[in-house]
Amino acid sequence: MKHIEYPDLEAFFQPQSMAIAWASDDPLKLGGIPLKCAIERGYQGKIFPVNPKREIVQGIKAYPSILDIPEDVDVALLVMRADDVADVLWQCVKKRVKAAVIPVVGFAEIGGEGKKRQDEIVEICKSSGIRICGPNTNGLANVREGVTLGYSYAQEVAIPGRLGYVSQSGALLSATVPRFVKTGIGLSYFVASGNQADLDTFDYIKYMLDDPDTDVIAAYIEGLKNVDKFLDIADLSLEKGKPLIVLKVGRSEEAAKAAMAHTASMVGSDLVFDAICKQKGIIRVDDFDNMMATSLAFLNCKLPKGDRIGVLSTSGAATGIIADHAMNLGLHFPQLSTKTMEEASKILPGWPASGEMKNFWDIASALPGRMPDLSKRTIELFVRDENFDIIIAVSTPIERRAGEAVVSALVQASKETEKPIILLSPMGGLLEREVQIIAESNIPVVADAADCVKATAALIKYSQSYKSYKETKVVTAPLLAGNVKEVKQFSKSGGKTLSEHASKEFLYRYGIPITAEAIAKSVEEAVEIAGRIGYPLVLKVDSPDIIHKTDAGAIKLNISNEAELISAYYEVLANSSKYEPKAKIRGVLVQEMVKEGREVIVGMSHDPQFGPVIIFGLGGIFTEVLKDFSLRVAPIAKTDAEQMIKEIKGYKTLEVFRGKPQADLESIIDTLLKLSKLCTDLGHIVSEIDINPLMVLDNGKGVKVADALVVLS
Amino acid sequence: MKHIEYPDLEAFFQPQSMAIAWASDDPLKLGGIPLKCAIERGYQGKIFPVNPKREIVQGIKAYPSILDIPEDVDVALLVMRADDVADVLWQCVKKRVKAAVIPVVGFAEIGGEGKKRQDEIVEICKSSGIRICGPNTNGLANVREGVTLGYSYAQEVAIPGRLGYVSQSGALLSATVPRFVKTGIGLSYFVASGNQADLDTFDYIKYMLDDPDTDVIAAYIEGLKNVDKFLDIADLSLEKGKPLIVLKVGRSEEAAKAAMAHTASMVGSDLVFDAICKQKGIIRVDDFDNMMATSLAFLNCKLPKGDRIGVLSTSGAATGIIADHAMNLGLHFPQLSTKTMEEASKILPGWPASGEMKNFWDIASALPGRMPDLSKRTIELFVRDENFDIIIAVSTPIERRAGEAVVSALVQASKETEKPIILLSPMGGLLEREVQIIAESNIPVVADAADCVKATAALIKYSQSYKSYKETKVVTAPLLAGNVKEVKQFSKSGGKTLSEHASKEFLYRYGIPITAEAIAKSVEEAVEIAGRIGYPLVLKVDSPDIIHKTDAGAIKLNISNEAELISAYYEVLANSSKYEPKAKIRGVLVQEMVKEGREVIVGMSHDPQFGPVIIFGLGGIFTEVLKDFSLRVAPIAKTDAEQMIKEIKGYKTLEVFRGKPQADLESIIDTLLKLSKLCTDLGHIVSEIDINPLMVLDNGKGVKVADALVVLS
Repeated sequence: MKHIEYPDLEAFFQPQSMAIAWASDDPLKLGGIPLKCAIERGYQGKIFPVNPKREIVQGIKAYPSILDIPEDVDVALLVMRADDVADVLWQCVKKRVKAAVIPVVGFAEIGGEGKKRQDEIVEICKSSGIRICGPNTNGLANVREGVTLGYSYAQEVAIPGRLGYVSQSGALLSATVPRFVKTGIGLSYFVASGNQADLDTFDYIKYMLDDPDTDVIAAYIEGLKNVDKFLDIADLSLEKGKPLIVLKVGRSEEAAKAAMAHTASMVGSDLVFDAICKQKGIIRVDDFDNMMATSLAFLNCKLPKGDRIGVLSTSGAATGIIADHAMNLGLHFPQLSTKTMEEASKILPGWPASGEMKNFWDIASALPGRMPDLSKRTIELFVRDENFDIIIAVSTPIERRAGEAVVSALVQASKETEKPIILLSPMGGLLEREVQIIAESNIPVVADAADCVKATAALIKYSQSYKSYKETKVVTAPLLAGNVKEVKQFSKSGGKTLSEHASKEFLYRYGIPITAEAIAKSVEEAVEIAGRIGYPLVLKVDSPDIIHKTDAGAIKLNISNEAELISAYYEVLANSSKYEPKAKIRGVLVQEMVKEGREVIVGMSHDPQFGPVIIFGLGGIFTEVLKDFSLRVAPIAKTDAEQMIKEIKGYKTLEVFRGKPQADLESIIDTLLKLSKLCTDLGHIVSEIDINPLMVLDNGKGVKVADALVVLS
Repeated sequence: MKHIEYPDLEAFFQPQSMAIAWASDDPLKLGGIPLKCAIERGYQGKIFPVNPKREIVQGIKAYPSILDIPEDVDVALLVMRADDVADVLWQCVKKRVKAAVIPVVGFAEIGGEGKKRQDEIVEICKSSGIRICGPNTNGLANVREGVTLGYSYAQEVAIPGRLGYVSQSGALLSATVPRFVKTGIGLSYFVASGNQADLDTFDYIKYMLDDPDTDVIAAYIEGLKNVDKFLDIADLSLEKGKPLIVLKVGRSEEAAKAAMAHTASMVGSDLVFDAICKQKGIIRVDDFDNMMATSLAFLNCKLPKGDRIGVLSTSGAATGIIADHAMNLGLHFPQLSTKTMEEASKILPGWPASGEMKNFWDIASALPGRMPDLSKRTIELFVRDENFDIIIAVSTPIERRAGEAVVSALVQASKETEKPIILLSPMGGLLEREVQIIAESNIPVVADAADCVKATAALIKYSQSYKSYKETKVVTAPLLAGNVKEVKQFSKSGGKTLSEHASKEFLYRYGIPITAEAIAKSVEEAVEIAGRIGYPLVLKVDSPDIIHKTDAGAIKLNISNEAELISAYYEVLANSSKYEPKAKIRGVLVQEMVKEGREVIVGMSHDPQFGPVIIFGLGGIFTEVLKDFSLRVAPIAKTDAEQMIKEIKGYKTLEVFRGKPQADLESIIDTLLKLSKLCTDLGHIVSEIDINPLMVLDNGKGVKVADALVVLS
């Protein structure tokens, strides 16, 4: 991991003094809103309004220019015509202002003239050391301390709390901060990174990761300028145990790219981004409610100790909706423990009724006639059950008092447990009295089943990533005996694309098993090689100019004796010459025929942003048409390799399947790890590896590369 | 379609008079709430509180018993101990009350004693003709007219409007009616069907379909008691042009069933339910917000004339989130028309900036400095564009006034177009002033991108289903020349499972092409048949006792001459005897070898609820492991067959693919329609058909059944 330097953002987020230029007396104007908000929010530092036309602005003494301010200024907000920004920024530099927020539009985002303006301010940054947020941003805020360096509606309404929020889009920031407020989520800081002329999204996230008053960070990310920084931030987030919740667009564009047939082109960068989220415990969300619910859950809940979910519900219908949404996320719903079952049958005579699910507890039968005592006891019992690590509770009260009883009992139970409890309210929120009751607890309330299930899954997944990070600390790929220097020779030996045989030899140096094979230059040599390998055999032309051997008729399978071998030898050569008369033909590859294995593909390609990426799938149309493959960025750990294999939908075919024993999964894992090591050592000189197919034999019998293509850079 | 009789529910939903027994003076008690609500809502009919202990209840004259009421009573609400219900119901019968609502719990849902109680009231129903809603329900309401026959929180808060709502779950009803209110959705009627001792969900839906004041119906459905009724309601919904929005649970249970390998067991009834929704234009939703947004869209929007969506946004970020969610729904986003592009470049100099998407219009550049006039003109231009049939607008204003300008311009534009416009507000709702402005229009406001996209897709899909229903009216499968009587002979000719050869002959009678083949009883006969068919050939044992021919070694492929044929003949027989010494062997099937085609499977199976179901897929692990198949309930129309083929993920392999021309899709459609006709004629005597594989030749060359299994009932 490269060492990344991050800037000091203290002057932006904890300024002792702020200048606002040009400050307006009208609290509805763009230059008036930030001043109004800072005053209303009780900012404790010094505020210096700058306005050449007024001595007092909104009741505070104003100065004609930045340079006229008699004291030190930490940060300046520049609200003015784009054309005036550079001049005032120079005044800031002279005044030794440390930081400037430039919300103004009219810079690189409009191209042309704007691009020039932006270049000019970047130049000022570089030569002076002043740091810049923006331009074309909605600015930033320290919500707790009244630092309001921007003029969006967000500045007016944000409430203080422990979520840090960074958005690359200003429009999205101003729309979603009010939504955080509606959801009851308080913010420590928020910032829109805008054109990122100087500071970028990850600089801000780093500040929040270090900040003791921020527990969770949410971010809207459009694209990555600096991949190393992203990977570093991801590690820091695990290191510090501060979950990073990311909303990122781009699946649809990438889906189009992924439609292309080649392995390399399947690796659209959004797919890789998604893989990194899985590897590094980043929580990826896909919509606004999903972001709200997940933020709420991480802000309020302790991490679950395991993945066993208990569902406690006043409605079988709502439970069913939860189960439907949980289906695709691989969530675990164990049954109630025997102990709970026994105690429950004492409290609720006749329970469970026949057909009732023992892993989803419907407490409707305890309501409403016999509550509140009964609902209190059943809820207590359920939450305590040792079979559950995390609880989803559902409240669908028929009338007001029943709802209060359920919520009270949940709050009571939550005080006696470490287990996270999430409350699903199909009503879309609680009634006034219930809101008061639940405020005493750390139970998040979510309105939709899908969001509730996703938040639960995110808590579990993050808890696992965090634990595994703490246990392994540094991901180390296994060391191999391969001689790196020798392998590097391959890159000097000719063209960029290695022939099949050369590709396999290359992989073999890294300890990846290949088929027994040799190149024959004559039919006699072919017969001799066949004698050593043994039948059945495969013959293939060895030519860098014929990639699609099947189309060319340049491959013969299942050759079972010498007569067939001889005729196949000539046929392969004849077909090859016919197919591509100018092809350079180096010989005929005589190869062991692997008949029994299951075919998979393993490959690496270079993502333009993320570097070497490792791919696993069943190959053929499974990979190309059905998109059933898994990805990770190199290097990978053993757990990553395991997950890659289990993640594909076709995984079942590698288990005991149609009378076959389990495939040798350990050998696939071993191959993936060796490929990862190869990427670490040689990622800079190898641009693509395509092992297609890797033949996977039955458990304990290993794997063999049956065909491969290595492309050097 | 069978003729279904529906009961008259006028007395429940439009009663001239209501009796409430026992009515309570306390408006917070269960017997007090309905009376309080009826008074507050201004019910115009007569109310007769029944209470043996009081002469006046909540200011209205009360009667000691139902029988003491001096006038006619249309409907009675029975709020009392479960044990007392039957007696009071008898009094209702004597009083000639037409309808009774029994919200009380303690009936079939608790089993035992409760079951007996329910049997008793069903008996009263049957013998007297009184109709019953419930028991174990949250009752019902005519919201407009103050009919409040139930005591849930829903009765207190519902607002009048044009959505009818039916729920099989009382708990879900009481939780979601307040949510409709929060969403601003008014209801005509709502009802929980409860134990459905007499009336069921579809009886209520039928009433609302006939009701002139209900435009759209939403329903929560748990299971189907009467499938014919469901299918009839689905047709009626299209006939009357009243969309039916259904939330149904059960995907997850079915997923478990679907994990089993056999074709028959894949057809879980939830999958079939889903297929029917697609066939009949029913809008299936999967969560609460999804139900709210979809209801809102159908209540407010006209149906779009086509499927071309325009996205008009103040945020590229929000547009990206929309595109990501739209990806899997196959939605169409055409580019702006040339005309609009030209006019736009006059209004917005420099637009579009390079790289800007021409099919998603980001109007942020028209904001905020130059609004409101500019945003008005750009929005007008966009909405008018002839390339769009439906508009998604996104508003993410930085400050208050910008939001008002966008909303005003949208409202203005909406008045001049028939096109539906849906507004996505990432803020999670509008500001107060914006709410006032939009109230003048029929633009629904949705808070989440996924819900917005799903509602848009639902409007488009329903519009297509409605149009296609009106055009075809009655779905007619093509008539075939097959002699039904003769085909029926097969069922008399022996066991239930037909051999491969008999199965194919059966299908052939319905005009489905099969491989050239015949049964040989001797090696000489085999040679003679081979002469007629021509090489290459396949040999298979013909035995009802050997199903898995490959495992038994009882199949030989690619036989290319007489010598191979003779040796294969004996080998097949020897292997078969070895594999299953007691097997009845009828001969050896000599069969044309189809080499060039692409393999698909086509089948039918009997769903226990829905009857004959038709299945299409690529077969093998595509179908079994990856679950990539499509279903429809027979009979199907040509458009259904087309959709079935295009719906599977592997569809691409049937198009021009890897150098092959398009497969003969018309012949697959033809096969599916012939199978559908077979289901209509013989669905009662055939329980399963498995054509696996159907070999599909290149376009224009047809299909051939290579292997098949028919099971008779």
